[in-house]
Amino acid sequence: MSSSSRAFPATPSPAFPDEYAHAEIVTSQVPGPKSQQQLARLAALQNTGAINFFADYAASRGNYLVDVDGNRFLDVYGQIASLPIGYNHPKVLEAMSDKDNLAMLAQRPCLGVFPPADWVDRIDDTLLKVAPAGLEDVNTLMCGSCSNENAYKAVFMWFQTKLRGGRPPSEHELETSMTHQLPGTPNLSILSFQGGFHGRLLGCLSTTHSKAIHKVDVPAFDWPVAPFPKLKYPLEAHQAANEAEEARCLEEVKTLLEHSAQVTNPEDSRIAGMIIEPIQAEGGDNHASPAFFRGLRDLAAKYGVAFIVDEVQTGGGSTGKFWAHEHWGLENPPDLVTFSKKMQTGGYFAKKEFRLKEGYRIFNTWMGDPTKMITLKAVLDVVESDSLLENVNITGDYLKAGLSEIAAEFPALVSNVRGQGTYLAMDFPTEAVRNEFVGLMKTKGVASGGCGVNSVRFRPALVFQPKHAAEYLDKMREVCEVLSKA
Amino acid sequence: MSSSSRAFPATPSPAFPDEYAHAEIVTSQVPGPKSQQQLARLAALQNTGAINFFADYAASRGNYLVDVDGNRFLDVYGQIASLPIGYNHPKVLEAMSDKDNLAMLAQRPCLGVFPPADWVDRIDDTLLKVAPAGLEDVNTLMCGSCSNENAYKAVFMWFQTKLRGGRPPSEHELETSMTHQLPGTPNLSILSFQGGFHGRLLGCLSTTHSKAIHKVDVPAFDWPVAPFPKLKYPLEAHQAANEAEEARCLEEVKTLLEHSAQVTNPEDSRIAGMIIEPIQAEGGDNHASPAFFRGLRDLAAKYGVAFIVDEVQTGGGSTGKFWAHEHWGLENPPDLVTFSKKMQTGGYFAKKEFRLKEGYRIFNTWMGDPTKMITLKAVLDVVESDSLLENVNITGDYLKAGLSEIAAEFPALVSNVRGQGTYLAMDFPTEAVRNEFVGLMKTKGVASGGCGVNSVRFRPALVFQPKHAAEYLDKMREVCEVLSKA
Repeated sequence: MSSSSRAFPATPSPAFPDEYAHAEIVTSQVPGPKSQQQLARLAALQNTGAINFFADYAASRGNYLVDVDGNRFLDVYGQIASLPIGYNHPKVLEAMSDKDNLAMLAQRPCLGVFPPADWVDRIDDTLLKVAPAGLEDVNTLMCGSCSNENAYKAVFMWFQTKLRGGRPPSEHELETSMTHQLPGTPNLSILSFQGGFHGRLLGCLSTTHSKAIHKVDVPAFDWPVAPFPKLKYPLEAHQAANEAEEARCLEEVKTLLEHSAQVTNPEDSRIAGMIIEPIQAEGGDNHASPAFFRGLRDLAAKYGVAFIVDEVQTGGGSTGKFWAHEHWGLENPPDLVTFSKKMQTGGYFAKKEFRLKEGYRIFNTWMGDPTKMITLKAVLDVVESDSLLENVNITGDYLKAGLSEIAAEFPALVSNVRGQGTYLAMDFPTEAVRNEFVGLMKTKGVASGGCGVNSVRFRPALVFQPKHAAEYLDKMREVCEVLSKA
Repeated sequence: MSSSSRAFPATPSPAFPDEYAHAEIVTSQVPGPKSQQQLARLAALQNTGAINFFADYAASRGNYLVDVDGNRFLDVYGQIASLPIGYNHPKVLEAMSDKDNLAMLAQRPCLGVFPPADWVDRIDDTLLKVAPAGLEDVNTLMCGSCSNENAYKAVFMWFQTKLRGGRPPSEHELETSMTHQLPGTPNLSILSFQGGFHGRLLGCLSTTHSKAIHKVDVPAFDWPVAPFPKLKYPLEAHQAANEAEEARCLEEVKTLLEHSAQVTNPEDSRIAGMIIEPIQAEGGDNHASPAFFRGLRDLAAKYGVAFIVDEVQTGGGSTGKFWAHEHWGLENPPDLVTFSKKMQTGGYFAKKEFRLKEGYRIFNTWMGDPTKMITLKAVLDVVESDSLLENVNITGDYLKAGLSEIAAEFPALVSNVRGQGTYLAMDFPTEAVRNEFVGLMKTKGVASGGCGVNSVRFRPALVFQPKHAAEYLDKMREVCEVLSKA
């Protein structure tokens, strides 16, 4: 029996207004001829190797992304996890048409110098409403990479200020920083994890370890890297082995921190902070237990190192809680939480002790973009009014159960179904089979994306409902039948 | 006689529609009580050390920035040089209200994966119309720092590809890049200049040498730095000394490049590119001659090093040409030109040889923001229809002559009037006097900004006209009279 002909679990969330009934492919090839034509034009200007197709954003609606050839895709990739409440949500359209927002759309102010009259209200109405418990400070920034790099900078400045006993930089420190000498330019690092992804700018790329093509040929800071647990799924079936693996990784982190703590010569490198994703996304949707993260948090506190949680991809509700680290039950909150993607604006939350005492230290021309706060306001209003976190949990459970069923039917093809909320993933035997699967799903009208070597990740919008999950599952079963006969 | 009572030179550009007649200060203190109130609220969330006042963007118009207390400032700072055609230009308001643009305002697509249907048209209608001669490629990005860092990455990848004879990275190179080892992670650098500013992310901050407070406490790549000429103004009165100074700097650059060219051990650092601003802005509006820049361009070509021109602040017309490097008369164009600020979108132009052959190498989630292309289209249309480059040249000449007159009247106070178009600057005896000048001008209704240690920079919008320059000059003369009696 097909998934879509079964009864769906009830969700409290209303159906997306005027959404399409289902995906539909109308061209014999995807991308179709019009996409191909645009692609050829763009290829005269830049590398186009990552482009899937050209989209008709005016025609797209809810969970369906329409391309220029009129193909309509069920979107489980969500603009690389950055689509919060679907395409052309009426509340977002309304906000963008609201005359009261026009002046903000028409200027690009320097938020750090001449913030708009209602800037604090806009922060109050959006970021502060969802601020992680215990994190009083917030800075807005442009994108995820920029948010992580500025979090690193805040951590370095905090660490050095702590070493100085709280005093501001001395004249000597200021002078030596201009020629990159000690003590003004310290030899500090951010500890990161194998398989982690924190962006592609030169600082955060030094903490990114997901794919070589992102890193090769680019100079890097030689900062320490710790192992991230390689767990077996389903987690509950491999508890002892997984606990041992996490204990091994925690021990390695402890060794690195212990070594750093014993450094007394300022020429030797010291760890100022560590950064981790709640679920390693680009690296292949790798999970770890709440106990592991609590262990890291405690180690960071013990060794006086900042604990940065990168919620660029996990933040905004798709794990079933607004922030993924809420699943951990931390007693001591993270020191900094970075965000972007579904939040539309970048930025970071931080404990007050990471506030800089001097101006212009965490600063750039724009410090974010107030127009994204307009979108974010509409998004958060809809998340609340439409009970979208509840929807994510209901839909996620339903989708995960369906994926597990298919994995049981095609054990040689699909494995390691995992995740929380709709932030799910599954593995295929090889990269080639995974790519073939994603390609075949696209010909059936599903836009999806891979991660890691052989995984497929689910990153639908929060308005993804059981009926959409059922549509996905039906198509997946068809594709698996084809692939299993190949 | 006051400047504003004299006849103004004619400009072909129409007056800004419904602009205010003049600046006006209505509170006894600036920032006024409403700004103070907002400031106190924001200070609970972040460092606010760089904030001047809270602005009423809906009430701002043309060259006048209105604050929440109803003070109206003549704006010669232009949102740190990022305001192209004034506040609330009717053409920008129209574009933002255009129903055809609504779908683009309401989504935040991944431009590198699912570009909008009209994306290539939007690039054609904007960036390609103003592309520097000889630079066929363009990539959009988020902001100036992001543009520079991605330009560095493109340069590193180009340099390594060249060393490899054009082949893609090998398996060994890919693998070693994951652990930051040779040969995958090369020891390459970007040569920069003392006093230069290229942003504050960890890579570009390593090439920024303008102010210590931007750099202190942050780890840096130990990359080479060359001297930037310290010229005497007015340039034409010190030709021989200035030529000697530029020759000295070129010689030092040559020595660094020669040294790099002789490196054969891959463990030793090599220069892959150099970056320079046409006018060092944050560093104090430091100029050099076209011959100096031609010399650098030729040295870069001779030593096989990429020549990156950072036009983040100079680009977009305020020097009287759309790109400041057009003043140099280069026979061989720059290899890469980065932009942001007045362009509203970040990005870089490049020669075709800097195009990556593999996808996902110059990549991030958003790759810019199409809504900024809507603004940019309106901006470029107005620059053309209203002859704004001509306006900049006429207004700039008039303002520069007026500043020189005041400098002659107050020689102990104002010196080194310099610049091109309205991209002007002048010096004060000390940082303290400069800050006092900027503060007093603010109490008279002028929003302006410093740069370097003791300079004031002019960064008005392109719609700044002789009458606005006259208003500035009148207020400046009043302030100089007060300061000279102090």
